[in-house]
Amino acid sequence: MSKTEKLYSFDKSMALFEEAASIIPGGIYGHFSPTLTVPGSFPYYAAKAEGCRYTDIDGNEYIDYMCGYGPMVLGYRNPVVDKAAMDQLALADCTNHPGEVMVKLARRLVELIPTADWAFFGKNGGDMTTYAILVARAHTNRKKIIRVRGHYHGVAPWCTALGFGGIIPEDHMHILMVNWNDVDEFEKVVRQHRGQIAAFIAQPYHHINFGDQVMPAPGYWQAIQRICREEGIVLILDDVRAGFRLSMKGSGDYFGFEPDLICYCKAIANGYPISACVGRKELMNAASKVFFTGSYWASQVPMAAALATLQELENTGAIEKMKDMGTLLMEGLKELGHRYGLDVTTSGPPALPFMRFTEDRDFFWQQLFCAEVTRRGSFFHPHHNWFISAAHEKKDIEETLNHAEAAMKVVKEKI
Amino acid sequence: MSKTEKLYSFDKSMALFEEAASIIPGGIYGHFSPTLTVPGSFPYYAAKAEGCRYTDIDGNEYIDYMCGYGPMVLGYRNPVVDKAAMDQLALADCTNHPGEVMVKLARRLVELIPTADWAFFGKNGGDMTTYAILVARAHTNRKKIIRVRGHYHGVAPWCTALGFGGIIPEDHMHILMVNWNDVDEFEKVVRQHRGQIAAFIAQPYHHINFGDQVMPAPGYWQAIQRICREEGIVLILDDVRAGFRLSMKGSGDYFGFEPDLICYCKAIANGYPISACVGRKELMNAASKVFFTGSYWASQVPMAAALATLQELENTGAIEKMKDMGTLLMEGLKELGHRYGLDVTTSGPPALPFMRFTEDRDFFWQQLFCAEVTRRGSFFHPHHNWFISAAHEKKDIEETLNHAEAAMKVVKEKI
Repeated sequence: MSKTEKLYSFDKSMALFEEAASIIPGGIYGHFSPTLTVPGSFPYYAAKAEGCRYTDIDGNEYIDYMCGYGPMVLGYRNPVVDKAAMDQLALADCTNHPGEVMVKLARRLVELIPTADWAFFGKNGGDMTTYAILVARAHTNRKKIIRVRGHYHGVAPWCTALGFGGIIPEDHMHILMVNWNDVDEFEKVVRQHRGQIAAFIAQPYHHINFGDQVMPAPGYWQAIQRICREEGIVLILDDVRAGFRLSMKGSGDYFGFEPDLICYCKAIANGYPISACVGRKELMNAASKVFFTGSYWASQVPMAAALATLQELENTGAIEKMKDMGTLLMEGLKELGHRYGLDVTTSGPPALPFMRFTEDRDFFWQQLFCAEVTRRGSFFHPHHNWFISAAHEKKDIEETLNHAEAAMKVVKEKI
Repeated sequence: MSKTEKLYSFDKSMALFEEAASIIPGGIYGHFSPTLTVPGSFPYYAAKAEGCRYTDIDGNEYIDYMCGYGPMVLGYRNPVVDKAAMDQLALADCTNHPGEVMVKLARRLVELIPTADWAFFGKNGGDMTTYAILVARAHTNRKKIIRVRGHYHGVAPWCTALGFGGIIPEDHMHILMVNWNDVDEFEKVVRQHRGQIAAFIAQPYHHINFGDQVMPAPGYWQAIQRICREEGIVLILDDVRAGFRLSMKGSGDYFGFEPDLICYCKAIANGYPISACVGRKELMNAASKVFFTGSYWASQVPMAAALATLQELENTGAIEKMKDMGTLLMEGLKELGHRYGLDVTTSGPPALPFMRFTEDRDFFWQQLFCAEVTRRGSFFHPHHNWFISAAHEKKDIEETLNHAEAAMKVVKEKI
């Protein structure tokens, strides 16, 4: 790009944010609150979206590497999924009863996922992680839950850190924390609370904010599974973020272990609101005793969208493609880092990648780099893992690498 | 109707339920589990819906008096709401950021509801009741919550009864229960826990299952409000069920009091999945410290649907119409009861009415009556309050009263 390149500005986003801040607590929720990023360095509101691109309310277009934080997996406005949803909407959506589509979707998940004997549906990922905890407690008649420091399971009080508004110590009184990839610590905690632990819940690998992602160490999940089975602990996989991006069979199958319960959301319906929990038959009786429902949970449109999304993911080889496109992007960024003397560390699976500058201790370079890429037309998140979709093509990745190169020059100048 | 009338059967519903029960815990969730109603007496799955009517998978058509348990308020497939949703879908739905529509919807609610200075959005009604609890705790730096026996606030562990799967006593350790309409008891509990109570949460009136609805006694809400203000207790109105059916200004305004926080869901978007919490400015700072979000919470389609729904409710005089149609139905049922010597008790506001047979102590007559009405073409719920929509016309009510008359003859014969 030349020195006369036109960089994006976010005037309308900033103005609307100011209005929003007067009538919405915090103005906006999520990762772009002004406490987490430099105000004015990222867009705040989206106006339209199609394929792997979206446009903000200032008219800036982006190649999107967040995919709505995961739900978009086949491209925005995917015609196959939207048609399935619209066909269903023309019949029935939110009625007194579910539709046949709920049973079909349960059947589909049971056929697809090796450890799934049954399925249950909600709206949020967090609905399903809390549901899974209840199922585990009902099944074991025990109270304690082991979880991993830094893993995200939603916003229910049991999994939200003290210090956030309204969370009290009692919310965590039966929550035990362990470090990721530490089998010894897990065994120790299990021994200390033998016979009291209902469940272990974790994401399939360590994806945290402001840091590298860490894959499971060889044998980690197999050791965890063995201990859980020996001790009668329900093994819950929170696959909300990675589900249907690593494998159609779930991240349990991908990493070679057999969870008792798996929670899904995000990529399951390409943005239509639905979440799911699947489980082994041993847990089904306990699950049937859990009281869990919501106003829109039986709605048929998102279920039809989910069926179409799963089919389209299979039909188009989407899993392989996301891996290839993510690899292309990460390799390109590493190569650019090498060229400009800014060593790049990449982490996570290619379909949910993250990069940072190896020498960047405080995420300052990262914030600058992602903002500079973003104002050139590729949306890079500065502190959350990224998402690749099956709508990303080689030419999109190449265009993004051009944005990244220009941004790297800026970082090189300013640091 | 003649003796040769063709009564509905539910063979396909029953067969699909049997399949569902093998892959979905309990087979179905909600009020029509076989433990709550006689198997085969009600439909289980909906195939299509339009206006105030829907058709089940056996092809039986019903005039609907449940409205999807409330969300349907303008009729299924309302063309104005669906067009607003589709226009938004053509632009953007679930993206990295919310849209301008979120700010517009917040503005609309703030303008509409007297006590609302700000608004926040989620997906389930239960998202918002839990959010309100967190806001109250953050605001007061207190832990205890007073709630009313029998009121329904969703499925979070803090408000789900012991005995349901996975609920443990610790979930309720800061929950204090009082009886509906009892100011003295409320005052006593407040005195006993002075300075420790973060919030009082209640529905605007007492709508319970398997029983009459009970309106607030004169002065009840005003006394509660006075005590809450004196003691620094956050007053939370759970208007999820009744919101936008009694008044466009909220049930607080309708009953003449000023809640600090009001939770909405159901009727806010005619079935598109969204919930909202509105609050007074005093609570906004605390609200901004609560960490609360979800995968689909910023989705734009349901927000566009909500704006259209609120506008259409106003434009069409829907509140008045629901009241009139509900009154017509309840008066008609009472008259029929009188005619057949089966005294009928009606309760609740006409837009969310309920009836039972005054002498029916164990709800046996009620189950029989509602099943007999349902198999003639009007869907009556045997133990949950009903919902009227603005799509119900006088001719629909009259048709239903014919179904009710035939059913009442059956009840009369069988008891």
